[in-house]
Amino acid sequence: MHVFYDPDILNNSGILNEEESRHCVKVLRHKEGDLIKVITGQGECYTCTIIEASVKRCRLKIESRESAKKSSTVCHIAIAPTKSIDRFEWFIEKSTELGIDKITPILCHQSERKQIRLSRLEKVIISATKQSLRFWKPSITELTNLKDFLLANHPEKLKFIAYCDEKVERQPLSAQLLDRDKTQSVLILIGPEGDFTEEEVTIAIDQGFIPISLGRNRLRTETAGISACMTVRLMESLHK
Amino acid sequence: MHVFYDPDILNNSGILNEEESRHCVKVLRHKEGDLIKVITGQGECYTCTIIEASVKRCRLKIESRESAKKSSTVCHIAIAPTKSIDRFEWFIEKSTELGIDKITPILCHQSERKQIRLSRLEKVIISATKQSLRFWKPSITELTNLKDFLLANHPEKLKFIAYCDEKVERQPLSAQLLDRDKTQSVLILIGPEGDFTEEEVTIAIDQGFIPISLGRNRLRTETAGISACMTVRLMESLHK
Repeated sequence: MHVFYDPDILNNSGILNEEESRHCVKVLRHKEGDLIKVITGQGECYTCTIIEASVKRCRLKIESRESAKKSSTVCHIAIAPTKSIDRFEWFIEKSTELGIDKITPILCHQSERKQIRLSRLEKVIISATKQSLRFWKPSITELTNLKDFLLANHPEKLKFIAYCDEKVERQPLSAQLLDRDKTQSVLILIGPEGDFTEEEVTIAIDQGFIPISLGRNRLRTETAGISACMTVRLMESLHK
Repeated sequence: MHVFYDPDILNNSGILNEEESRHCVKVLRHKEGDLIKVITGQGECYTCTIIEASVKRCRLKIESRESAKKSSTVCHIAIAPTKSIDRFEWFIEKSTELGIDKITPILCHQSERKQIRLSRLEKVIISATKQSLRFWKPSITELTNLKDFLLANHPEKLKFIAYCDEKVERQPLSAQLLDRDKTQSVLILIGPEGDFTEEEVTIAIDQGFIPISLGRNRLRTETAGISACMTVRLMESLHK
């Protein structure tokens, strides 16, 4: 069954927003009587019958409702967008499929990419949320200066910074999470291709971020982000 | 320091193969006296000085040797190449970074892609092996018919099949690996976009493959492959 995204489907008394209506009726050629799923990105998924296949205002009758609790562990990753935007969009698609909750693109001293198109990244998140049938849509913020981000207050109880410097011995993220309360939320910093500067690492540690490694191999920025997200979700599942 | 790949660097008494010589001298403009790393893909990494910067036969003096044991758990994933070859090459790059040992591309009943260019995929593996500074290069085979693959003998002690059918309750891969001896090698089957057919699943189960899930979300083929690889490596690290 095709999946559509509309956070306001209930408030709009079952009328699918214009973009999704067009996709449903014009692109996918759905007709009156067809069954589709609509996710709100806020924990609900509705199975609906199309009662008016309008290209701009597709009218739906809600047949049934499923809901899902938000994961008890919030996984928030603050990551420097990569020089190649494809690699960053790929990180966003994959981390959405794998269960990330929040993405903060950060601007670091050695960042090669100094701007992003948030609307484009939002589209990638929505499409991956639909594709993976996630009931909760991850959130993403505008590009944020790392130092401002470090000095701000964060609700996450556990804060980590992953970087490549081999001089310092660090525990892997998995070991750090092994004996934690599974309901503790996690914030992980991932640096740019050129890595964090020593000054950035020092400030992070002063702000309570724990240095971690992400395994033996040297990972690209986007792979490090996926690895961190997978590790949080996997360790959470082991606590259950 | 730039990393190059040459499995025969010792047998050729320190002369880098033609492809890597060109890359080293012509593309990266290395000169006599420069230091580079050469990995063999067989567990060794040599730090070398360039003593003759020849475009075809770059001559090296080995200064030091590092070596790494092969991981005790062999991670072998048999996966159906995706319709979009980019997505499959992406799986190969990322699983190489994350520590996969063996990839078998499989041809299933519902495979949308019926051919691969092995030489191209080998290049992706070599470049990701160098990039991630892995001392062991993963191996990849030609496209193999799933039924032939299922009926063949496999050295791996643990064999799993991941598929989407929600009817059957299955344990997540992580739970399956939780109490296993970490030295047991693992083989995981990942199906095509259209998933395995019921017949393929039945044959796999008859052949001793254990049905597993890869979490709550519906994952694309290439994401399922990455998730499976990460899970094997993470569970292995927890046993240490």
